[in-house]
Amino acid sequence: MSYAEQMLENHSETMQVDSAALVECIRACFDCAQACTACADACLSEENVQELVRCIRLDLDCADVCETTGRVLSRHAAPEPELIRAVLEACIQACDACGSECETHGRHGMERCQVCAHACRRCQEACNAMLGQLAA
Amino acid sequence: MSYAEQMLENHSETMQVDSAALVECIRACFDCAQACTACADACLSEENVQELVRCIRLDLDCADVCETTGRVLSRHAAPEPELIRAVLEACIQACDACGSECETHGRHGMERCQVCAHACRRCQEACNAMLGQLAA
Amino acid sequence: MSYAEQMLENHSETMQVDSAALVECIRACFDCAQACTACADACLSEENVQELVRCIRLDLDCADVCETTGRVLSRHAAPEPELIRAVLEACIQACDACGSECETHGRHGMERCQVCAHACRRCQEACNAMLGQLAA
Amino acid sequence: MSYAEQMLENHSETMQVDSAALVECIRACFDCAQACTACADACLSEENVQELVRCIRLDLDCADVCETTGRVLSRHAAPEPELIRAVLEACIQACDACGSECETHGRHGMERCQVCAHACRRCQEACNAMLGQLAA
Repeated sequence: MSYAEQMLENHSETMQVDSAALVECIRACFDCAQACTACADACLSEENVQELVRCIRLDLDCADVCETTGRVLSRHAAPEPELIRAVLEACIQACDACGSECETHGRHGMERCQVCAHACRRCQEACNAMLGQLAA
Repeated sequence: MSYAEQMLENHSETMQVDSAALVECIRACFDCAQACTACADACLSEENVQELVRCIRLDLDCADVCETTGRVLSRHAAPEPELIRAVLEACIQACDACGSECETHGRHGMERCQVCAHACRRCQEACNAMLGQLAA
Repeated sequence: MSYAEQMLENHSETMQVDSAALVECIRACFDCAQACTACADACLSEENVQELVRCIRLDLDCADVCETTGRVLSRHAAPEPELIRAVLEACIQACDACGSECETHGRHGMERCQVCAHACRRCQEACNAMLGQLAA
Repeated sequence: MSYAEQMLENHSETMQVDSAALVECIRACFDCAQACTACADACLSEENVQELVRCIRLDLDCADVCETTGRVLSRHAAPEPELIRAVLEACIQACDACGSECETHGRHGMERCQVCAHACRRCQEACNAMLGQLAA
């Protein structure tokens, strides 16, 4: 059982959302922040770094946005729905842009970009699922 | 002249926005992140901390969102308009929620919350101004 | 297999350290940052929040330091040993202080602080293990 | 008067250090985090980006470490001296490494790296001054 799940179980107040979806979204955000940070660093090691500049920039933006989203969702005791919705929407944009770019490089044989794309798509889906629950 | 302004002047590529508005928005984001971090800490020192719990939570959310917004805007060489817009909208939500809460405490004599409210409102306005330029 | 592990496997350059230890340290840092963020939020929900003020502050410091450490370690392609050592030492200090404080509350029946203490101790050990490898 | 200064003046508890030195250190950390973030982005726009890879990596590390240091120092109500010292030492390492690298590029005519080097050196000095006060 992850810390995120244990922390949620022992929290006296929480958001009116499915707790498995919330745990998955928090974990997907932190995992994506890490993958994007590592992807940017690995891209900087490539000989064709000049062709990866957009990928690096989107990695950096996505890492920051995911991290903030993971933090805001970790503070779920007394949620502000409008703020959470806006943060989730920004995260979906960041993951979509970064995921698309990484998929392109992944299709050209860069396996690490493929891993990062997967982290972005998982995070995007988790944020969309949360957004659906908040809208309901 | 601030570093933000000097960095912008020496940047070979940049966003098609008024550079003074961009510098102001970057600075307002970083300043607000600092003010909110300090406000949360100061609130934790108050005897009536229980009444300040919402203020502390909004301070923490606002600090994270402002910092990410300041970073995304500092990477302005090859902007992704949809991502920037979504990030600015999240920042406006965070600053509005935190600014309103801090204003309430400011009216009850907590001068430090008044300072933080000012930082939030300035940041909210700067983000709105940026959003207006991007929409144009 | 975690993203951190997959990212490391597909990285062309890397630190001269045991890769399992590096993956564990990166994951422990991000997990601890999340646990501390959630712990601070949960503490703010407690009736006796006034007695938890030191715990909240250490949670916030520890979350920030762990996150930065996890990011610096995720950029392992061309490591700067002195910088990494200093960052690991700061992380060990943060995890030790926060872990000790959370253990105290854990012993008094706060299960969530016990979970957070575990995350801190795991991160502290992982940072110590990394430090040992860098010194060798 | 900066927000940092106003926040400090209205804080009921604080560190036993010179408040002007504390304000300067907090501001220097946030300013350096911004300058390093912008420097990394500007370096990514350069034709000779391959020669700037070390600069970009140090910019990213320095931005994260400075931001965390600025946040830890902004929470000065109930300081943990050992933790603060370790964080300041990590920040000094990050600013020294990044400042040296940026100075090299600054001497070769990259004015923006010169600005960033200045932000790093100012932050390094401010952290050293704080460290001196804590040791006293």
